[in-house]
Amino acid sequence: MITRVDHIGIACRDLAASIAFYQRTYGFEVFHQEVNEQQGVREAMLRINGTDDGGATYLQLLEPIREDSPIAKFLESHGEGVHHVAFGTADVRAETAAVTETGVRALYPEPRHGTFGSQINFLHPKDCQGILTELVQSPVHE
Amino acid sequence: MITRVDHIGIACRDLAASIAFYQRTYGFEVFHQEVNEQQGVREAMLRINGTDDGGATYLQLLEPIREDSPIAKFLESHGEGVHHVAFGTADVRAETAAVTETGVRALYPEPRHGTFGSQINFLHPKDCQGILTELVQSPVHE
Repeated sequence: MITRVDHIGIACRDLAASIAFYQRTYGFEVFHQEVNEQQGVREAMLRINGTDDGGATYLQLLEPIREDSPIAKFLESHGEGVHHVAFGTADVRAETAAVTETGVRALYPEPRHGTFGSQINFLHPKDCQGILTELVQSPVHE
Repeated sequence: MITRVDHIGIACRDLAASIAFYQRTYGFEVFHQEVNEQQGVREAMLRINGTDDGGATYLQLLEPIREDSPIAKFLESHGEGVHHVAFGTADVRAETAAVTETGVRALYPEPRHGTFGSQINFLHPKDCQGILTELVQSPVHE
């Protein structure tokens, strides 16, 4: 079961500049930063609001750390903008299994490591109305 | 002040098919439907979660009702996918004024009519890291 919009993933060329934009324009602050070597990104999470499942909704700013990162390829073809939409669930394995039973393809056979030590999978954008969709089981509850 | 991610606006060619996809894949239900003549769209709001400011976060599915609708133009150039990101605020006029003071252009000189009788404005994507951004003051609190 999906219980929240967990985050909106945003591709940017310069993480520091993007953080400065969101701080200056809306007053959003960085809640967390990390490097995800597997995904090839340096990222910042800006916490926007709490959600009624005990989680929160974030903007996730993503800068590629190498040329073969999916974010680098996205920037090359699309420029900066929304890269993916992530839905939060209490059980990413069960949710991925349920979704793939409806005919939607998952990108990974097993969940991978996401932000905050979360477990994630992605759903193929061609099966999701053009939207790269992430399922995320986060250990963070606030 | 921005207090929530209000919705993610998604451009689709066939609203009924898009509603059916989200219902079948995730079990999301239609919370509200309306036609917005000014924006040239038929739309459905799928409520995903409540937010800690007393509002909620939705997916907003948007189908154009005429060829000169901005959504029709978006579909022609981008195909189906995320069209905009909307942030909720208690005062759209004050928030628009604050944001434009930082150098970001608003699309309308005065707020227009949005979903649920809300007041909305849009911020220029070229000033917002490639993202068409909506500010929304919603009368709906749950």
